[in-house]
Amino acid sequence: MSTAPSTALSSLALPHVAKLHAYTPGLQPTEPGWVKLNTNECPYAPSPRVAEALRREIGEDGASLRLYPNPKSGPLRAAVAQLHGHGLSEQNVIIGNGSDDILNLLIRAFCTSEAAAGYTFPSYSLYPVLIEIQDGKKTVIEFERSMTLPFERIASSDARAFFITSPNAPTGVAFSNAHLERVLATYKGLLVVDEAYAPFAEENAIPLFAKYPNLVIVRTLSKAHALAGIRVGYALAHPEIVGLLDRVRDSYNVSRLSQAAAVAALGDPAYYAGIVQRIKATRDATLANYVARGWFTYPSQANFIFTEPKNARGESGPAVAKSAYDFLYANKVLVRYFPSHALTASFLRISVGTDAEMRVLNDTLDAWLQAKTNA
Amino acid sequence: MSTAPSTALSSLALPHVAKLHAYTPGLQPTEPGWVKLNTNECPYAPSPRVAEALRREIGEDGASLRLYPNPKSGPLRAAVAQLHGHGLSEQNVIIGNGSDDILNLLIRAFCTSEAAAGYTFPSYSLYPVLIEIQDGKKTVIEFERSMTLPFERIASSDARAFFITSPNAPTGVAFSNAHLERVLATYKGLLVVDEAYAPFAEENAIPLFAKYPNLVIVRTLSKAHALAGIRVGYALAHPEIVGLLDRVRDSYNVSRLSQAAAVAALGDPAYYAGIVQRIKATRDATLANYVARGWFTYPSQANFIFTEPKNARGESGPAVAKSAYDFLYANKVLVRYFPSHALTASFLRISVGTDAEMRVLNDTLDAWLQAKTNA
Repeated sequence: MSTAPSTALSSLALPHVAKLHAYTPGLQPTEPGWVKLNTNECPYAPSPRVAEALRREIGEDGASLRLYPNPKSGPLRAAVAQLHGHGLSEQNVIIGNGSDDILNLLIRAFCTSEAAAGYTFPSYSLYPVLIEIQDGKKTVIEFERSMTLPFERIASSDARAFFITSPNAPTGVAFSNAHLERVLATYKGLLVVDEAYAPFAEENAIPLFAKYPNLVIVRTLSKAHALAGIRVGYALAHPEIVGLLDRVRDSYNVSRLSQAAAVAALGDPAYYAGIVQRIKATRDATLANYVARGWFTYPSQANFIFTEPKNARGESGPAVAKSAYDFLYANKVLVRYFPSHALTASFLRISVGTDAEMRVLNDTLDAWLQAKTNA
Repeated sequence: MSTAPSTALSSLALPHVAKLHAYTPGLQPTEPGWVKLNTNECPYAPSPRVAEALRREIGEDGASLRLYPNPKSGPLRAAVAQLHGHGLSEQNVIIGNGSDDILNLLIRAFCTSEAAAGYTFPSYSLYPVLIEIQDGKKTVIEFERSMTLPFERIASSDARAFFITSPNAPTGVAFSNAHLERVLATYKGLLVVDEAYAPFAEENAIPLFAKYPNLVIVRTLSKAHALAGIRVGYALAHPEIVGLLDRVRDSYNVSRLSQAAAVAALGDPAYYAGIVQRIKATRDATLANYVARGWFTYPSQANFIFTEPKNARGESGPAVAKSAYDFLYANKVLVRYFPSHALTASFLRISVGTDAEMRVLNDTLDAWLQAKTNA
């Protein structure tokens, strides 16, 4: 079949789609040997109950897989509600094929070329991509370098839905409920607090539900629950919001295996409390290492660290960050680097791995500092 | 938390979303004891290689699940291309979280309130739902009762993308490549041939790719491959179309387990040839049974049968079909009934199960005919 570009084909697509740039996910190398600290995955295996539940669902011959999954993810929604308490019920929960699915449903239900969706910069870089796919209007509010929440600007924005990532990515900085309430007290739109990293934080926004029906909290099992591979995320929201999103959701968006794995994981909070504790200890030790090096580093309440490397001459900046990134990459240590904006271009975002992985990382950074090519 | 309806919340959503009716999937009973012939699932287990591949991916402790899946579904795309031959390569393939995901990507890339998406009635009832979610323009072309393809009306339609289900649902009637070419010869839009049921048919549209770059073929592993539970579908298309859809697709739309299961299934065509053969034999015997009863029944090239039941007095019609449906339901035999349109309201759609399941169905229909309540 011909693979020559056909202008006629692209011109059939909607003009904004033909111009889109796809979201750039972090590299997912398939060959072994990498120290992979670039997509905030969990360095530990999921709860042993996950593998057990999957083997049970698969059975001898996978016969149950011939049947469609539960279209409402009923047992999983019940498990989520039970986990979080605070009076939440199944009616407050919607399950997504990863939290990206949930974010997409929110954009489709609340954003058009006239009704803006808002987000801060920096934050999760998928938001603008989802808004562009929708051909929607964007309201972008930039942080100061302090990375404190610009709550007044958010509260007075024209956005019909506003996305706050807390703890934020890629900085790791968390926003307090007191600051979120400064938004919620006056903001009339839908406030979406994307809590992908909340299990690593000191506080979360769930207690605010009782007061603010326009609050939506988004969670994922990809980070703290060590299940990025199964694609399960969810939102907690007022039943009316859940009902709206459900009309936009695909009926069979979550597979039988993913539902079974997620129910099993959420049923083992003690296991996850243990690995979250270890990750936080490794994070804090790593952060102390960068502070000791004299590198500016944001306080992190997530499972990653955003640090501004200095070279052997004590200089920082985009060229230095790129030099460090490239040296790490050449030595098969994968971190993330966001060169496109002044607020992020001098930094590296480093996912928290095992202590052994962090030793490899830090040894490689030491080698970079001694190399002639450290910019 | 309060569950009282809040008008303010619904009014935040886009007006067309607040008015949407969600797609109604077939019932998925969770309690045992049903003869389930309502959602065209496969009555046999998937290839044994599927369970083996899943156990391999899960390993001892599910550790690989902590990592994101391959964002391009690379090995699965290669397996699809290899399966179909005809010069197709990985660049001609895009993988979806079920074929519903693919259909949604097509609507998002090609349909707006000004650029219509078209489909026939009857056909897969998800198309109008997806167009309504997009707030898109619809072009609906109704079949005559003969159910022959209205190729001239389709070819001259204003739709930027047109969806044909072949074999069609819920009728089971397949459209020949000769008829599809009558559309393709003049139609300038994107022609999407939804071949969910093609493995049960005598012909498929893949040979037409060589001539028509505006052809898209959609497939699923939910039917012939006995994997409705894992949510994998795909499209075959010109690389430029694949590239457009890829920009709208979520990077991690297919889980690690689903990718592994699908690769294993596609690698065992001999197994699937065997079960497809059995399903076709059961289908043809069941169809002969209805013809012998004097029930009008469309010739089926799918894994289901669309038949117009007659009651003991030889009458057919919506009330008779509903009576048969209700009697079957009361006896825990689940089929599908589409009362909303004259072309479908006198019929039942019956998925082809095992021979034993079809005996239960037919015995129950016999009991209905002897019951006093058969309308």
